[in-house]
Amino acid sequence: MGGTDPVIRGVAPLDRAGEEELSFLANPRYLAYFRDSRAGAVILTPEHEAEEGFSGARIVVSDVHLALAHILPVIYPESRPKAGIHPTAVIGEEVQLGENSSIGPYAVIGDRVRLGDDVVIGSHTVVGEGCELGDGVYLHSQVTLYPGVQIGPRSIVHSGARIGVDGFGYVFADGMHQKVPQVGGCIIGPDVEIGANTTIDRGSVGSTEVGENVKIDNLVHIGHNVEVGDRSIIVAQVGIAGSTVIGRGVTLGGQVGVSGHLEIGDRATVAAQGGVFGDLEGGVVYSGYPARPHRESLRAQANLFRLPGLVKRIRALEAALFGGETREE
Amino acid sequence: MGGTDPVIRGVAPLDRAGEEELSFLANPRYLAYFRDSRAGAVILTPEHEAEEGFSGARIVVSDVHLALAHILPVIYPESRPKAGIHPTAVIGEEVQLGENSSIGPYAVIGDRVRLGDDVVIGSHTVVGEGCELGDGVYLHSQVTLYPGVQIGPRSIVHSGARIGVDGFGYVFADGMHQKVPQVGGCIIGPDVEIGANTTIDRGSVGSTEVGENVKIDNLVHIGHNVEVGDRSIIVAQVGIAGSTVIGRGVTLGGQVGVSGHLEIGDRATVAAQGGVFGDLEGGVVYSGYPARPHRESLRAQANLFRLPGLVKRIRALEAALFGGETREE
Amino acid sequence: MGGTDPVIRGVAPLDRAGEEELSFLANPRYLAYFRDSRAGAVILTPEHEAEEGFSGARIVVSDVHLALAHILPVIYPESRPKAGIHPTAVIGEEVQLGENSSIGPYAVIGDRVRLGDDVVIGSHTVVGEGCELGDGVYLHSQVTLYPGVQIGPRSIVHSGARIGVDGFGYVFADGMHQKVPQVGGCIIGPDVEIGANTTIDRGSVGSTEVGENVKIDNLVHIGHNVEVGDRSIIVAQVGIAGSTVIGRGVTLGGQVGVSGHLEIGDRATVAAQGGVFGDLEGGVVYSGYPARPHRESLRAQANLFRLPGLVKRIRALEAALFGGETREE
Repeated sequence: MGGTDPVIRGVAPLDRAGEEELSFLANPRYLAYFRDSRAGAVILTPEHEAEEGFSGARIVVSDVHLALAHILPVIYPESRPKAGIHPTAVIGEEVQLGENSSIGPYAVIGDRVRLGDDVVIGSHTVVGEGCELGDGVYLHSQVTLYPGVQIGPRSIVHSGARIGVDGFGYVFADGMHQKVPQVGGCIIGPDVEIGANTTIDRGSVGSTEVGENVKIDNLVHIGHNVEVGDRSIIVAQVGIAGSTVIGRGVTLGGQVGVSGHLEIGDRATVAAQGGVFGDLEGGVVYSGYPARPHRESLRAQANLFRLPGLVKRIRALEAALFGGETREE
Repeated sequence: MGGTDPVIRGVAPLDRAGEEELSFLANPRYLAYFRDSRAGAVILTPEHEAEEGFSGARIVVSDVHLALAHILPVIYPESRPKAGIHPTAVIGEEVQLGENSSIGPYAVIGDRVRLGDDVVIGSHTVVGEGCELGDGVYLHSQVTLYPGVQIGPRSIVHSGARIGVDGFGYVFADGMHQKVPQVGGCIIGPDVEIGANTTIDRGSVGSTEVGENVKIDNLVHIGHNVEVGDRSIIVAQVGIAGSTVIGRGVTLGGQVGVSGHLEIGDRATVAAQGGVFGDLEGGVVYSGYPARPHRESLRAQANLFRLPGLVKRIRALEAALFGGETREE
Repeated sequence: MGGTDPVIRGVAPLDRAGEEELSFLANPRYLAYFRDSRAGAVILTPEHEAEEGFSGARIVVSDVHLALAHILPVIYPESRPKAGIHPTAVIGEEVQLGENSSIGPYAVIGDRVRLGDDVVIGSHTVVGEGCELGDGVYLHSQVTLYPGVQIGPRSIVHSGARIGVDGFGYVFADGMHQKVPQVGGCIIGPDVEIGANTTIDRGSVGSTEVGENVKIDNLVHIGHNVEVGDRSIIVAQVGIAGSTVIGRGVTLGGQVGVSGHLEIGDRATVAAQGGVFGDLEGGVVYSGYPARPHRESLRAQANLFRLPGLVKRIRALEAALFGGETREE
């Protein structure tokens, strides 16, 4: 650590931090802000250790975000709601409550629900009949769990997420779309986080399954019978159609769409807005519509913009070969 | 039916079903699972009747999903909530309740609402002033109906759907965007299903209208004054901009976007992620951005990947005609 | 004004308006409806003043939508809920209530919340600890404000919007994605409107900020630390990734995606479904994936469809130069 030894009371971005605040430089894009920053201290990596301009303390680490993940809970301790059941909560029959749980105002807990210890259920959250929540599960306000949903320990569900919803299944008969009853399960693993207003359908038959430590952003749609492998990352507004199997460690960028009944290999990455219409091998970065290996997509895009030049070259060849005659299509 | 006569207590996928479970083979992709399945019985079509390997009973039908639609409600009877008004429900003035309806905890029913018979209103659902719900309508938890929405008999609305929302209408005047009051209606037909967290705007003036037996998936957006024709299918995360008219029997795949003030002909299909920027004739399959007839889109995509080859051929022509000289753009 | 002097009791579209209703012609697409309209009066611009066929009164204005914005509130006066706190609302400690506010059934107001005058809080809406709402703010039903959110005067938030949600921030360590605490703020300016089921994340460190008079449609996602400049328009289902700065007067069309850490210049426009992967200069219209100036995108699209013709021309050149030999790639 260089510079004077500051008192730190908060964390703020480089351009807003004051003397009693810690800041961080994680992206070279913000170097100019670093040089002018008035932060008391800045966390940075060895490559920026010697940058000039900034006069406060420098805390050199190998991974800025990891350092923040350790420091932030110290400076901003998490405030979980106090244990206890709000008098307005409606608790069904044969509900099994763990120890030290908090159930907020107007929560509705259905019959035969089983809650682990240290569970938090936010205000207005509805937990359907027969759901099972592991230790330390945190459901924010206004969540809906349809009946029979299982959520593993320590998982977090943000406001407005709907889990275990009926899937989109119909047959056309007698001149109408007829609903196929959606009777399967919906199993969410441990250490998962599910974003606000995300929807996850239950299985039609069998289950929709989200593995361990999967992170799902806001407004994502996951169809019936989808399986998402451990530690996959699903960015905002992704849609995954029914029965598709997402491997482990997969990353789907924002607004990616994946068709139904596909297999996406382990550690595949699809860049934002990609459209996946076929199985993808693991360990490869894809992009585009339809999604292809990223390098191919880039080349195809580049070629598209070379076309006017090619047309000119063809015209020159035609002039040389056929005389003035040009054969425009 | 072949094999022994099994006792069936549930339905499960081929790879998970046990002796007392029924399964089904609806997609040849899962033939390998069929061969190894330990299900007590499998529903399948004549084309797979003679497949080897599976030793349980085979139930041969012409349409597997239709058979499931008939069988599932027998094995898994639907459990509608008991009739009655939960004591915590807030009921407005001059509300007209039908017979045999169920109103859940913390539901809020506005003044002058009219409900048909056999209606289910889930917990926390808010029904705005003057709404009208037909017989057998089922609103799940946490739905919001803005004032004046009409919903036809037997329609189902999933958790978090917002219906009759103010449309997105502004005029720029005096240096600001000024809100144009959205005073129109929102009319949903009979036998419709609306997915979780879907939003349907009311008309600005006039009405937004969803026809009979339309099926709408999760996280769909339907703008003000849109009309959706009978029996159309709108898959998850589709967006339809204001005043567009969708014909009858149209299918919009997942994440499709349709611009405003367009007409989409009857039985048109737009594949997933398509972007529709002009009117579409009915009865045709479209895809791509911007959406074109699917065959054209496929050819354009294929051509894009032929470009490197074309460049080589042009170079060879140039070498033959002009000597070593190549005219790269 | 021409024609007889009608009594007007409502506003309706051209094809539905009757004698006692006002209508309007804002889009030449609907001229045929105008000619046959039975409306008592029609608002239109000078260019359509002389159109034949319609026999009712004509009200000629320079901007039809602006005229509607003035007329609609007269014919359909806004009905704000009556002032008062519903007995079922749960109000925390040290809450500061303004005058003339309305708090609906089952609303939950956290500790230390400060409300201005004339605030409306809809039923079931949850306002987290320490939030601050300016005068005239209108939160519809079932909104969630996470703790510490600030909303400027006169802003409107529609049902199901989630504001101040934890951003999507993780570090990978010890074989797992670890959550980076999201401790920043979320500041919404005055005269903003936020659509139904939209999600806006709080800052990780620092704040997410939405400027004055920004209009945000339904199902939009705004990531952590994003800044949206004054008077920008964000259409339905747009996604904006973390730390991106959107300038003033920007328009993002429906389903547009913008990557993280970018800068979008003032008055830039991105057409529907565009994918933005780099900084954009202001004052320009962009489209496509990846987004480029609209004219370039159109030309690239057009060229794609010229390719089959180019292939033929190359084949003709090859036949002339090399004889029958064609070198297909």
